[in-house]
Amino acid sequence: MSEISRGLENVFIKATSLTYIDGEKGILRYGGYNIEDLVRNCSFEEVIHLMLYGDLPNSEQLKKVKERINESYNVPPPVIRIMEELPHDADAIAMMETAFSALASYYNYPWKKGENKERALEIIAKASTIVANVYRLKEGQKPEIPEPSESYAKSFLRATFSREPSEEEVDAMNAALILYTDHEVPASTTAALVTSSTLSDMYSCIVSALAALKGPLHGGAAEAAFSQFLEIKDPSNVEEWFNENVIKEKKRLMGFGHRVYKTYDPRAKLFKRYAEELARTPESKKILDIAERLEDIGIKNFGEKKIYPNTDFYSGIVFYSIGFPVYMFTSLFALSRVLGWLAHIIEYVEDQHRLIRPRALYVGPIKRDFIPLSSRN
Amino acid sequence: MSEISRGLENVFIKATSLTYIDGEKGILRYGGYNIEDLVRNCSFEEVIHLMLYGDLPNSEQLKKVKERINESYNVPPPVIRIMEELPHDADAIAMMETAFSALASYYNYPWKKGENKERALEIIAKASTIVANVYRLKEGQKPEIPEPSESYAKSFLRATFSREPSEEEVDAMNAALILYTDHEVPASTTAALVTSSTLSDMYSCIVSALAALKGPLHGGAAEAAFSQFLEIKDPSNVEEWFNENVIKEKKRLMGFGHRVYKTYDPRAKLFKRYAEELARTPESKKILDIAERLEDIGIKNFGEKKIYPNTDFYSGIVFYSIGFPVYMFTSLFALSRVLGWLAHIIEYVEDQHRLIRPRALYVGPIKRDFIPLSSRN
Ligand SMILES: CC(C)(COP(=O)(O)OP(=O)(O)OC[C@H]1O[C@@H](n2cnc3c(N)ncnc32)[C@H](O)[C@@H]1OP(=O)(O)O)[C@@H](O)C(=O)NCCC(=O)NCCS
Ligand SMILES: CC(C)(COP(=O)(O)OP(=O)(O)OC[C@H]1O[C@@H](n2cnc3c(N)ncnc32)[C@H](O)[C@@H]1OP(=O)(O)O)[C@@H](O)C(=O)NCCC(=O)NCCS
Repeated sequence: MSEISRGLENVFIKATSLTYIDGEKGILRYGGYNIEDLVRNCSFEEVIHLMLYGDLPNSEQLKKVKERINESYNVPPPVIRIMEELPHDADAIAMMETAFSALASYYNYPWKKGENKERALEIIAKASTIVANVYRLKEGQKPEIPEPSESYAKSFLRATFSREPSEEEVDAMNAALILYTDHEVPASTTAALVTSSTLSDMYSCIVSALAALKGPLHGGAAEAAFSQFLEIKDPSNVEEWFNENVIKEKKRLMGFGHRVYKTYDPRAKLFKRYAEELARTPESKKILDIAERLEDIGIKNFGEKKIYPNTDFYSGIVFYSIGFPVYMFTSLFALSRVLGWLAHIIEYVEDQHRLIRPRALYVGPIKRDFIPLSSRN
Repeated sequence: MSEISRGLENVFIKATSLTYIDGEKGILRYGGYNIEDLVRNCSFEEVIHLMLYGDLPNSEQLKKVKERINESYNVPPPVIRIMEELPHDADAIAMMETAFSALASYYNYPWKKGENKERALEIIAKASTIVANVYRLKEGQKPEIPEPSESYAKSFLRATFSREPSEEEVDAMNAALILYTDHEVPASTTAALVTSSTLSDMYSCIVSALAALKGPLHGGAAEAAFSQFLEIKDPSNVEEWFNENVIKEKKRLMGFGHRVYKTYDPRAKLFKRYAEELARTPESKKILDIAERLEDIGIKNFGEKKIYPNTDFYSGIVFYSIGFPVYMFTSLFALSRVLGWLAHIIEYVEDQHRLIRPRALYVGPIKRDFIPLSSRN
């Protein structure tokens, strides 16, 4: 069975100019720019331009990106009605899958160089509308379409919460959008690539990525990590909880470990810093305290195996401090990753397209003679 | 760039006991049984048992499979209402994606050995309901839930067309269901596997597979192949059409070529036989005549490059003869392939699970210094 590439580890599915990861040193760059520089100095819209067009925009280019997004927040009314039909306790990503599938019924564009990136900007705008309304509908509020404002992050928060977000909240949301923008080819991006390789439409590519992101080993991990903190309840319980669950019951420590990083995830470092800045209420301070103690114990136990906190370990505390309930964390991950998915599938279809069709190694019975139903025992 | 496995050609993503393909000799077997034996002698329900439980069922086992399916055709009423919200000209697979995403909002089961296969039987039943109503709603008819009958194929046709299907139609539908059941790990199955590898829910796995199937290089090919026949209009035009489109304009001949088969696709042979049996009206006889001439010219031109008719070349004529419009072909492919997708993801998650996470080869700028917006040209 040595022929099997288990989990496709170290199989190169494509070339990319989008994202560079050095998993040993803990380096992450988009288009050659260090992730920390981008998070500290850029708007998400600048990163959109970087990922789609290959470089950070000048003012004129940035203006065009913003305009295209601002005029694309609307979605066909049935898409909202479809979301309203879903039960309030529906999984947030399942709601997003439904909404994007419905959008695929309206926007079934063929791939076309020179138009794909415009399509991508529209999809990024509509993602904001969808995610804002996942929250609103699950909370029993009436739907709302984001309105243009100074930034994508601000328009999204305003539509979601029907209130003016603070500057600090907008900054944190903007940072989270950039931190989750892309990470080369994790499972969700791989699903999107496989779908794009059949020349399926762009919305369907997003749908397949969402389906993959949903799992607890991928995007679902931020919710799972945060739920651990809530389950632990108090900083004094961390050690006992860890021994009971991770050591004794051998449950995986969620928000820890990564296929590529064999050291501290650089995104986790930045999310941690934002979490520390934002956690102000006694409740969120306590959660942060639990997380930091759990991190210490986790590293003490797993550091030798090169298992460290990943991006999902602290992101939940940032989202929670902005005001999001736990069930929204994976959708917020999705909201920014839509950009990474789109950038990767456009790069793949435009420059290196080929149908993705691996093999399976057959290990079953080689040849069996057919026996009619009446003669089977 | 030699490190890149383009299209994952010859990369083994998993082991399998489900489907064996010999692409050089044109052999296809499910669980060791020759495809022709199964098509000629089995009901689709027997193949369901074979794919999920490893062997053809005895009468008792078959009864259980049928019972479980018969009691699972219902879907939550909002799922039907959601389908009704979609425009009548929506792509049929986009409608299926929407319906299955909506189902994921209701059935968010965790993976559990001993329950997964029961879940699979439920999903297979609900797929019949969804596909029947894709047709009905696009035709402006009222929704209908399939009712138990002697067979899955018959219940599906009855619900779809609100009429008693002939024995010949039921046989052909049953054969098509078996022929499209599984084909190892094409793009759609790969998408499902990637999604299952994050431990996302089963319905979401189907959603990602549907998204990938939709593309014209995969499931979309049956519609594309048939559309060629319609475009050609008359057998006397075949040669001119081929020269103009395939030779001169270098368009791909749809329904021809395969990553794995380097000879005649054994499924194409069987579909062709059914097409010849079923094509009775002057219209379908003419289409069959066009198809057979196009096949001859195609093989004359491409046989040397080992490009032959694939499963999608003749399947459309079979579906058309049963009474389906062209827009339904990919959904009918999906209806049977749901079984293959489920069997593969259950095999993967239960016996060989690992997160699927390949790499991309970075070829962009290695390190760029950040320049603030105001200083960019
Ligand atoms: C992300 C993840 C799936 C990547 O792991 P991978 O490359 O597939 O590695 P494997 O599953 O093969 O695990 C390798 C070893 O590390 C262990 N390991 C990996 N992550 C672990 C974790 N979070 N907690 C405990 N043990 C872990 C495995 O048990 C395994 O140990 P073994 O060799 O003794 O059996 C894994 O780290 C994980 O499940 N993490 C928790 C979920 C999570 O946070 N996901 C978000 C990622 S951004
Ligand atoms: C299915 C398919 C994508 C598999 O092809 P693949 O393994 O990815 O092969 P490639 O795309 O690398 O093509 C290899 C060569 O065969 C040619 N080729 C393959 N299928 C062809 C077709 N249907 N018509 C014309 N040329 C074809 C390619 O143009 C290429 O030629 P080149 O080497 O001179 O450039 C391809 O055969 C195809 O596009 N077929 C038409 C769509 C279809 O019927 N799909 C259903 C499959 S069940």
